[in-house]
Amino acid sequence: MSGTDIEKLIKQIAKLPALGSRSARRIVLYLLKKKEQALLPLIADLQDVAANIKKCPICGNFDTEEPCAVCRDTTRDTQTLCVVQDVADLWAMERVGLYRGQYHVLGGILSALDGITPEDLNIEQLFVRLNYGQIKEVILALPATIDGQITNHYLLSRLKEYPLKVTTLAQGLPLGAELDYMDDGTIQLALSARKEI
Amino acid sequence: MSGTDIEKLIKQIAKLPALGSRSARRIVLYLLKKKEQALLPLIADLQDVAANIKKCPICGNFDTEEPCAVCRDTTRDTQTLCVVQDVADLWAMERVGLYRGQYHVLGGILSALDGITPEDLNIEQLFVRLNYGQIKEVILALPATIDGQITNHYLLSRLKEYPLKVTTLAQGLPLGAELDYMDDGTIQLALSARKEI
Repeated sequence: MSGTDIEKLIKQIAKLPALGSRSARRIVLYLLKKKEQALLPLIADLQDVAANIKKCPICGNFDTEEPCAVCRDTTRDTQTLCVVQDVADLWAMERVGLYRGQYHVLGGILSALDGITPEDLNIEQLFVRLNYGQIKEVILALPATIDGQITNHYLLSRLKEYPLKVTTLAQGLPLGAELDYMDDGTIQLALSARKEI
Repeated sequence: MSGTDIEKLIKQIAKLPALGSRSARRIVLYLLKKKEQALLPLIADLQDVAANIKKCPICGNFDTEEPCAVCRDTTRDTQTLCVVQDVADLWAMERVGLYRGQYHVLGGILSALDGITPEDLNIEQLFVRLNYGQIKEVILALPATIDGQITNHYLLSRLKEYPLKVTTLAQGLPLGAELDYMDDGTIQLALSARKEI
């Protein structure tokens, strides 16, 4: 079919999230055809990231410098801390651009099914940060799932000992939602949390 | 949001076929989290391919050696030549494993819309190969589209001068097809090409 190097690369790419062997083959063919414009620049960019990437020792974000761009940014509010499950969620919040406070990346959430306990998460570092006393509000921006709620509950029980405001993201209908297409749970939630206008 | 190196890599990966910025971010985060197990092996495999990849001067296939594995394989039938649009189609034929002859990759098909003329394709090399006189059958395995048919027609008009059997892939219902879900054109085709059983 093709050289072993090519097959090895297809297998390597097929392992990436959101890709299968069919899309991996398409990508490899594209790279083979565009060696100068696509393959070599991709290698260079991957090498730059591999050489420079660091995990921020304060919040857990990825960046090429330590601390990360968010923690370094002196224009940001240092009294608000947003707790997220993953770096992807931090990036999503930053894309929105509304939030100007600090972050803390847990690196996962509690899960009985997957055997994830508080010791497996970046939780102790959260309380180290809170002990400095600058933070006035903690926003729990964890997934709106059972495991997310359990993690919220656990964190809340420990956060009670601190003189803090603790909030979570609002739940309800997403923007543009039609009731007919929403799941029952979301409709129940939106109804019970209804607001006077 | 993240280091410029990371954003550059996300943009680079988002340019790959079948990927958008969302899947590119997922892939980059995966690579950042698994530097040793995923990022570094991926770089190594890409480098191997970039260093060794060659286009076969005989058929147009990609391989790490010249001529390619198919053209080098002395156990294959040298009297049958299968003309395909792209290396991806050659790979698809090889995955099926039924065909044991030679290939010729056109690198595209004729297209009035995209302005692709015979000069843009690897067609002259096809006739150079036919002039050697070893080929007894040419299988035109081009896409079952209008442009594919036009290319078939063009090739057929030039192949007439050679003492060759020229065939094309059969058209009709794909395996497992239910009539109800097939397009009208395919049903018409399958009906007019019906066979006695």
